[in-house]
Amino acid sequence: MRLEETVAQLQRRVGELEDRLALMQLLATYGPAVDSGAAEPAAGLWTDDGVYDVDPEVLRGRAAIAGMVTGEGHQRLIRAGAAHLQGLPHLQVDGDRAVATAYSQLVLRDEATDGFRVWRTGVNRWEFTRTPGGWQVTHRTNRQLNGAAEARELLYQAVAPPSTG
Amino acid sequence: MRLEETVAQLQRRVGELEDRLALMQLLATYGPAVDSGAAEPAAGLWTDDGVYDVDPEVLRGRAAIAGMVTGEGHQRLIRAGAAHLQGLPHLQVDGDRAVATAYSQLVLRDEATDGFRVWRTGVNRWEFTRTPGGWQVTHRTNRQLNGAAEARELLYQAVAPPSTG
Amino acid sequence: MRLEETVAQLQRRVGELEDRLALMQLLATYGPAVDSGAAEPAAGLWTDDGVYDVDPEVLRGRAAIAGMVTGEGHQRLIRAGAAHLQGLPHLQVDGDRAVATAYSQLVLRDEATDGFRVWRTGVNRWEFTRTPGGWQVTHRTNRQLNGAAEARELLYQAVAPPSTG
Repeated sequence: MRLEETVAQLQRRVGELEDRLALMQLLATYGPAVDSGAAEPAAGLWTDDGVYDVDPEVLRGRAAIAGMVTGEGHQRLIRAGAAHLQGLPHLQVDGDRAVATAYSQLVLRDEATDGFRVWRTGVNRWEFTRTPGGWQVTHRTNRQLNGAAEARELLYQAVAPPSTG
Repeated sequence: MRLEETVAQLQRRVGELEDRLALMQLLATYGPAVDSGAAEPAAGLWTDDGVYDVDPEVLRGRAAIAGMVTGEGHQRLIRAGAAHLQGLPHLQVDGDRAVATAYSQLVLRDEATDGFRVWRTGVNRWEFTRTPGGWQVTHRTNRQLNGAAEARELLYQAVAPPSTG
Repeated sequence: MRLEETVAQLQRRVGELEDRLALMQLLATYGPAVDSGAAEPAAGLWTDDGVYDVDPEVLRGRAAIAGMVTGEGHQRLIRAGAAHLQGLPHLQVDGDRAVATAYSQLVLRDEATDGFRVWRTGVNRWEFTRTPGGWQVTHRTNRQLNGAAEARELLYQAVAPPSTG
């Protein structure tokens, strides 16, 4: 291969690695944003019209997502002690679109036991678009792993063999 | 350094980064596969004759691993709500072989508390080989962190200074 | 762009990716070191005079950090079954300095329930310096997410917009 071609190929490979690390960083930003009550940094992970579908609520647009963070329910959680943990993501990047499939947990301070309890454990499908300012979330679906088929179907989408035909 | 040498060095460095991200992706695939009941994608993470040693069982080969996923015990767990979480892996890559050391947890829906409980927390040593189709697992050992020395020894292998002599 | 410039730019980009993966690896080494009781590998993650501020204790220097690992309190935890889990880190690299913001959990074997319980869930700010031997920790602050403002402030530092002026 000519040197120019090798370098062009390296640029593509490095770009793909940068994409994957940028998506990991985005997921790693969500918890610190919401658990510190930082509504604008949390909402800013989404596009202007991005959606956070967190059964039974569907938050549409940054203002709705910011409103969740500043809302009394969320504020009460973080004043008592809360951690929104994101698991190691399964990543699929396709040009200017990407999907991450990752578990999330909401862990709460539990005064009764001087410890913490796992209140929520769910699966998330994060859909991203590449923007001039970097990757942003267009749609996040969160479903609890409570035995409902919908959560298992979200997980399956990450591992299903590509359809043929 | 001549430009050709610099580019060759970059190719090696990029290859090493790609290896590490591919191994992370493999670990991030295990949970979505088993928690959605997708036996073939789960078993396909291993080589044909790969081993999953999950005390007290030792599953040998893909059929045995797929059989664990389709088995009644596992199916009952995921129908009630289960998350097989994998921690941030410690990675050691050496040519066409690699090892990941990572915690794992099995978190179950707990109707009694309207929450979740951590049923299992273990340490895993994943051994990989590079195949034409990418990295695959040759051997995974999982040991519970229940105070037994064996779990601590698996962890120690990741951090022990290289032996001299 | 001339080929030489493109290659020089690739070297910088690859160096940044290597930094981020090295910092992830460092965080992924902490748990295996302390949970196997490996005092030297644990303390060696810090610089000679590195600090681990883990409220209410402030451990100053490698000997103090090693002493925590070999101390009776820690040894009792790991003999009963303990996992020091680190979450997906939010990373900020700036030349030869870096910061990781990540959740941590201490999960303990719980004989009473034949399971595990989450005893501690905190937020960590890890500060690093680049040394000839790789990245090392200069300061780690760990604060429990028990509702105190200090933990939320550590999280906020990761997501706060850069100050202007």
